[in-house]
Amino acid sequence: MLKETNDLDTIKRISGGITAAPHFFACGIEAGIKETGKKDLALLFCEKECTATGAFTTNAIRASCVDWCDNLLPASSIKAVVCNSGCANACTGEKGKKDTETMAQIVSDNLDISKKSVLVASTGVIGKFLPLEKIKSTMPQLAKILSTDGGKRFASAILTTDTTIKESAFSVKCNEKRFTIGGCAKGSGMINPNMATMLAFITTDVSIPSETLSEILKKTVNKTFNNLTVDGDTSTNDMVLVLANGMSDVRIDNMKSRELFEQALYEVCNDLCKQIAADGEGATKRVEITVTGAESENDARTAAKAVANSNLLKCALFGNDPNWGRIACAIGYSGAVFSKDNMTISLCKIPVFRNLQPLPFDYNEAGKRLKEKVVSIDIDLGSGESKAVAHTCDFSYDYVKINAEYHT
Amino acid sequence: MLKETNDLDTIKRISGGITAAPHFFACGIEAGIKETGKKDLALLFCEKECTATGAFTTNAIRASCVDWCDNLLPASSIKAVVCNSGCANACTGEKGKKDTETMAQIVSDNLDISKKSVLVASTGVIGKFLPLEKIKSTMPQLAKILSTDGGKRFASAILTTDTTIKESAFSVKCNEKRFTIGGCAKGSGMINPNMATMLAFITTDVSIPSETLSEILKKTVNKTFNNLTVDGDTSTNDMVLVLANGMSDVRIDNMKSRELFEQALYEVCNDLCKQIAADGEGATKRVEITVTGAESENDARTAAKAVANSNLLKCALFGNDPNWGRIACAIGYSGAVFSKDNMTISLCKIPVFRNLQPLPFDYNEAGKRLKEKVVSIDIDLGSGESKAVAHTCDFSYDYVKINAEYHT
Repeated sequence: MLKETNDLDTIKRISGGITAAPHFFACGIEAGIKETGKKDLALLFCEKECTATGAFTTNAIRASCVDWCDNLLPASSIKAVVCNSGCANACTGEKGKKDTETMAQIVSDNLDISKKSVLVASTGVIGKFLPLEKIKSTMPQLAKILSTDGGKRFASAILTTDTTIKESAFSVKCNEKRFTIGGCAKGSGMINPNMATMLAFITTDVSIPSETLSEILKKTVNKTFNNLTVDGDTSTNDMVLVLANGMSDVRIDNMKSRELFEQALYEVCNDLCKQIAADGEGATKRVEITVTGAESENDARTAAKAVANSNLLKCALFGNDPNWGRIACAIGYSGAVFSKDNMTISLCKIPVFRNLQPLPFDYNEAGKRLKEKVVSIDIDLGSGESKAVAHTCDFSYDYVKINAEYHT
Repeated sequence: MLKETNDLDTIKRISGGITAAPHFFACGIEAGIKETGKKDLALLFCEKECTATGAFTTNAIRASCVDWCDNLLPASSIKAVVCNSGCANACTGEKGKKDTETMAQIVSDNLDISKKSVLVASTGVIGKFLPLEKIKSTMPQLAKILSTDGGKRFASAILTTDTTIKESAFSVKCNEKRFTIGGCAKGSGMINPNMATMLAFITTDVSIPSETLSEILKKTVNKTFNNLTVDGDTSTNDMVLVLANGMSDVRIDNMKSRELFEQALYEVCNDLCKQIAADGEGATKRVEITVTGAESENDARTAAKAVANSNLLKCALFGNDPNWGRIACAIGYSGAVFSKDNMTISLCKIPVFRNLQPLPFDYNEAGKRLKEKVVSIDIDLGSGESKAVAHTCDFSYDYVKINAEYHT
C-alpha cells in the first residue's frame, strides 16, 4: 500500500477536476441524446500533444469506443477526449464501430486535429445506435465554448443515473516545483470490481513517458477502481483515461518524482472511488471495507470484494441492522485464506466476531453508528501482512426502482 | 444432459414429498425457536437403516451441523434427520459444535437410536446460539406425532423467509417393479450457485450402494441446485441429503436402473429448484436461463449463472423491461467462451441480439410476455454442443425490504 502523506503541503487538495491542470480546455453541452434534455456531450481539448494511457473494461463484449481507445493507447499525441452519455453504443456491431470513428472524425473536423488524436467514450443504454446527426450539429458550438474552467460542465455531461458530479484535484510539490493532477468520473450502476467499472478522465501537467504512465495507472487502478462495486455488474463501456500535457516543469524521471506522482494519482482515483460509492444507485450511505492481515494482497482484495458484493449485507446496512453474520458468510465463500483462530470482524469500529466466535456487543450503539453517512467494516484475516480497501454503498429500494424503470 | 422422458408411465409425478416413499415417517412442530411462533423443528425417521449421502456448502465458514453430516456421510446406517429453522447455529464456535451434537443426542434419546444415525441441519440467523432447552422439551411430542403423511408439516417447519413449502415426488417403473422418490426443500435468500444453496431432503425406497448414491447426487446437484441463484450469496448451512431405505424391491445395480434412478433424482431436484426460484425473496416471477451451443458444460453453466446473477437484469425483469443489453453484458463478463459471429440471445422466445448486432423486435409484445409468471432467456453461444439451465427470479423492492428488516 501507498504510504500516508504527512506533509500536507506536498500533496495538497485543490478545487476543480479535469481542467485543474493548466492548458486543458473542456466543456459539456445538451446535444439531445438524453430524452431528459440534460447535458450529454462532453469535450476535453489540449493544444499540446499529450502522453496518454488508459485502463479498460475486462468485459468480452465491449463497446467499439473501448476498442478505439485501446487501439490508440498508450500514445504521445493525444489532444482530445469526447464523451457522450445517454447511449453506450455497445452491442451495436459494425455500424457501432463506424459510428465511433465518425464521432472522432467530427471532433477532428471541428478542432482541426488528427482523428487519431481523439479518444472516444460513451455511456448509457446498451444496444442503441448513436444519434450522430445530433452530435455533429452540436459539436461546433461545444468546440466554441471550451474553456479552462469548463471542468464542471464536462463532469456533468458524462453522467447517467448519477445524482452528483464527481471531481477531484491535487497540487503536488515535486523537485521544488509544483504539478497539478485532477479528474472527474461518472458511475452509479453496473459497477463491479474488474476494471474498469466506470468512466474516469484524469489530466495532469507533468511530463512523463507513456510506458511509465501506463505502469503507474495499472497499479493504481488495481488499488482503487478495481475495488469498487455497486452491484456486481461489469459494464461494456468502462475506462479510465489519463492525459499528461507536460506543461509544468515537472518531469517524472526518477524514483522520487515517480513515487510522488503515483501517490497523487492514487489520491485522485481513491477520492473519485469514494464519490462514486457514495452516489451508487439508490445509496443512502457509503461503505468502506478494509481488510488487513491477509496472506497476500490478492486475498485481501478477494475478501474485501466479496463482502462489498453481498446483496444480503448491503440490504442489512440499509436497514441499519448490525447483521455481521452476513460479513462472515461472505468472507467464507470468498475463497480468501483466513485464520480460523485469528480472524476478527469489526462493524463501525465495534468488534463483533473473533476466532469464529460471536462477541457480545451493544446492538443499540451499533444500530446508531450504522445510521451515519459512512459505514466502516474492518476485517483482520489474521494470516499475514497484506491489506486492501473496497468501496461500496448500501442497497435500497431505490436501486431496484432506478433499474426497473431505466427503460430501454 | 439427461434425456427427455417420453414414457409418461416410467417416471410419473405423484403428490407428496419427503414421506412419499414408504416407511418414512416425518413431522414438524412449533418449538418456539422462531419468534413468530411458526413451525420450526422438523424430524424425519425410518426404522430401517438407510443408505445416505449429502452435498454441502462450499463456504469455508460452515455451520457445525454441516461438519456433523459431512463427517458421517456417506453411510449405510442413517435413521433420522432433524432440522430446525429460525437459528442457523453458524459462527457459534465450540459451543455451536457441542450444541449440534446435543441436538443429535436429543433425537437419539427420543427415538432410541444411535446418535451417529442422526443427521442434523439448521437454518436461520447466523451468530445466535441454539435454544437447546426448547428443542429438548419439544422433541418427545415431535417424536410421538411422526407419521407417514407428515411430509407437509416437515416441509413447513424448515422454512425461513419462504412463503410456500416446496415438495416434489415421483413414482418410477424399473425392472417391472416401481420405486418412489420424493423430497422437500427450503430456500429463499442467501442463494447462489455453488453447492449447496439451500436445504433439501430427499427420500427413496430403492436399494443402492452409498458410493453409487454419492456419485449420482454429485452429478445431479451440479445440474440443478448449483445452477440456482437468488442473490449470489452462498450460505454457511446449506446441504442436500438423500436417504434410501431399500424397502421397495428395486435394486440400483445395473446401467438401466442407474439411469432411471438418476433421471428420477434429477426430476425431483429440478422441480425443487424451480419452486425455490419462484419463491425467491421478493420474487414476482421465475426466470429460466437456458444456454446452448457452449464449448463445454462449464462454459454453459458459467454464462447461465452470470446472467442469473445480474442484479441489473433482474431489476429490469421486475420492471417488465426487455433490456437485453444487460444479458449481453453479463455474458461478456462471465468469462464463458462464445462465438462473436454466432451468438444469439432470445428473451421470452423473441430473438433480440445476434452476431453482436441488435435485432429489431416488437417491444410491446416483449413487455407483455415479461409480465408472465415464468420468463425464459435462451442463449445460443454458437461455439459447441454443450448446454446448461440456470434458475433464478426477478429482483423487487420486497427483496430489499425482507433483507433490510430480517433483523438479527
